[in-house]
Amino acid sequence: MSPFFASRWVDVPDGLTEIAGGGLPQGFRAAGVACGLKADGGLDLGLLVSDEPATVSAARFTRSGVLAAPVLVTQQRARLDAIRVVAANSGTANAATGNRGLDEAARMQGAAAMAGRTEPDRVAVCSTGVIGVQLDGRKVVSGLHAASSKLAGDDADFCAAIMTTDKFEKRVTLELQLSGGPVRLSAQAKGAGMIQPAFATMLCFVQTDAALEAATAELLLGVCVKRSFDRISVDGQLSTNDTVILQAGGASGVAVAPESADELAFGQALDALLRQLALLIVKDGEGARRIGRVGVRGGDQQGVERVARAVANSPLVKTALYGGDPNWGRIAQSIGMALPNSSPLVYDIAIEGMQVAAGGQGLAHDSAELARRVAANEVEYSIGLAGDGAETEVFFSDLGHEYITVNAEYTT
Amino acid sequence: MSPFFASRWVDVPDGLTEIAGGGLPQGFRAAGVACGLKADGGLDLGLLVSDEPATVSAARFTRSGVLAAPVLVTQQRARLDAIRVVAANSGTANAATGNRGLDEAARMQGAAAMAGRTEPDRVAVCSTGVIGVQLDGRKVVSGLHAASSKLAGDDADFCAAIMTTDKFEKRVTLELQLSGGPVRLSAQAKGAGMIQPAFATMLCFVQTDAALEAATAELLLGVCVKRSFDRISVDGQLSTNDTVILQAGGASGVAVAPESADELAFGQALDALLRQLALLIVKDGEGARRIGRVGVRGGDQQGVERVARAVANSPLVKTALYGGDPNWGRIAQSIGMALPNSSPLVYDIAIEGMQVAAGGQGLAHDSAELARRVAANEVEYSIGLAGDGAETEVFFSDLGHEYITVNAEYTT
Repeated sequence: MSPFFASRWVDVPDGLTEIAGGGLPQGFRAAGVACGLKADGGLDLGLLVSDEPATVSAARFTRSGVLAAPVLVTQQRARLDAIRVVAANSGTANAATGNRGLDEAARMQGAAAMAGRTEPDRVAVCSTGVIGVQLDGRKVVSGLHAASSKLAGDDADFCAAIMTTDKFEKRVTLELQLSGGPVRLSAQAKGAGMIQPAFATMLCFVQTDAALEAATAELLLGVCVKRSFDRISVDGQLSTNDTVILQAGGASGVAVAPESADELAFGQALDALLRQLALLIVKDGEGARRIGRVGVRGGDQQGVERVARAVANSPLVKTALYGGDPNWGRIAQSIGMALPNSSPLVYDIAIEGMQVAAGGQGLAHDSAELARRVAANEVEYSIGLAGDGAETEVFFSDLGHEYITVNAEYTT
Repeated sequence: MSPFFASRWVDVPDGLTEIAGGGLPQGFRAAGVACGLKADGGLDLGLLVSDEPATVSAARFTRSGVLAAPVLVTQQRARLDAIRVVAANSGTANAATGNRGLDEAARMQGAAAMAGRTEPDRVAVCSTGVIGVQLDGRKVVSGLHAASSKLAGDDADFCAAIMTTDKFEKRVTLELQLSGGPVRLSAQAKGAGMIQPAFATMLCFVQTDAALEAATAELLLGVCVKRSFDRISVDGQLSTNDTVILQAGGASGVAVAPESADELAFGQALDALLRQLALLIVKDGEGARRIGRVGVRGGDQQGVERVARAVANSPLVKTALYGGDPNWGRIAQSIGMALPNSSPLVYDIAIEGMQVAAGGQGLAHDSAELARRVAANEVEYSIGLAGDGAETEVFFSDLGHEYITVNAEYTT
């Protein structure tokens, strides 16, 4: 078990290993520069380039009704199955910025195309930061020019340039054994607040030197996002800017054929990668101390989804998790809220394997032992509803003092 | 303007005055005792009796799928249009307590009937406190017996006995001039956390010596709850125990005829009373420093409701309110989250009368003046959506450090 794969909630497939020292797969280069968008002078503009003309890609975006300008520009002006260049800035989200915001995002796309020596429709642009602040396109254009001369196989500066309230970087390089030989995957993610999916509020970029068909990339990214960034919440808040991009350049010469054992292995590796990254985002949830996982079984799909979200987003459950308080009554309250007008509800609750309620009624249990178990870094809540039709899970952060401090003071 | 009616968001009708010194209307008596349910030995059991046999009533309850035992017992075994006695305890919610909980609630109902010299089906029982803890019926029975000998016209101890994390009492006595003479209304409410309606999570008892028909009480309570407890949120959490009861005893001899000017006047008085009580609950929201009001116009009814709830329950908006931060970008984010897959959304945002966004785009504004305005005790957010079909409002508390402290430590 490597340091990256640290959670019991991620299954790491055989043949997948972490590469210490990291870096990008063959055929990719990246850079990060400070162009003046962050007031503290930190790195705030990242450029990532695939040198392989045949690079294929897949992408997923936020479903917010208020889409940031870079999301609109990328969706409308980029070939989402053939993205070679990613330009991403922190400091401003370029959201709620109107036509001028769209112009600036398009200008960023054009400058990134020049910097990456490709066409604008092969460039994705992403922004993260304060909503409602215009992007200063002059700074971005000169920053991208500077970044183009720093492109290299290391992704540390690129990753740093997309961070906002993140307290630690979320990146990794993995090697996977396939039938044709080894391939590498690397990924950089950011996200700490405004995190609730459908899918989660964050940026994540994944690169591989495996050769994938665009349809395969699309299929695998879709499945893996549903099991990772779709299943996490820090504060239940869907953002305006969420973007996930998978790029496959093919420089390894190792192809992943559709419906092959290699495709399955690659999918499992991508699944483990994205799930662990999602958990790192929850772990870095603003001020978070502990991660919870709520699993719900029974009922129907809509019911388990509503219950899981209600528990994961309950400030009462989240403060109890923060306080190391095994307050199962707040779980019961969330279940009732999620399924209104359905009394009497029959439900079971277990916390870290200890049954605390059955058939809607509390059970005698060893509360000292339970208190010990909920003081761990990861706490699991299992809920059973009547029937056995459906199942889901949501990972969530606790809610503590630092969340208040961060969010009462962040911006304006 | 009296001390009770302190909010600009409540219209106080002519002819309605606050009676200093308070107390119950003619024909009502109450008491509060300590029966040992609260660990600190505080008052924890209240008894409220209408001596008029012809008393009529109306009631509203939580819609949670997990209903507390006293809610079930009251709904199933009491004549909701003829309640004479209310027994309410704090310390335990008697929720998620199964058949034993139902037995204890029924026992409480029977003991309260004896204490109030009426039949069990004219008794409402209410509980508030920790979920999942059994109610100790022996303590309750002997406590109700003790309370029966203390019944008097003062409601202070009764009000104290229903408080949990409340930091101040919420009660008032009002006098209203009707065509037939003056009538009085008194009310006692509790609530500070687990507050989100449909309707709000709290207990509220209203008494009047006016003579109302049961149908009038039902009509007026329904309308006024929709404009008060239905429109508030502290933490977006629907409770298992919410109960509101209006009792009209008729001892004043002043009748309120259906569809009369007096009915309108009585309705306006009840509306002002419940709205101000609802605002007091928000003000007492655990750790709250400021109250926000979000008003949404345009679109359709479902749309304005979703947007208003999304803003009122956003931890990002609530921490900004706490921090006195005029962060309108978080309002834009909430709007987008509430109306997914609807980009591009056209919306306007004003904060305390200052326009900060129009047509989905930020506007230049005097940010120093705006910062000054959002530091007030009450902050108003106005959102306009495309179209002019619907309108709603939600009142909400901020989210601060004390909420974390209270909820990370309350119970188990």
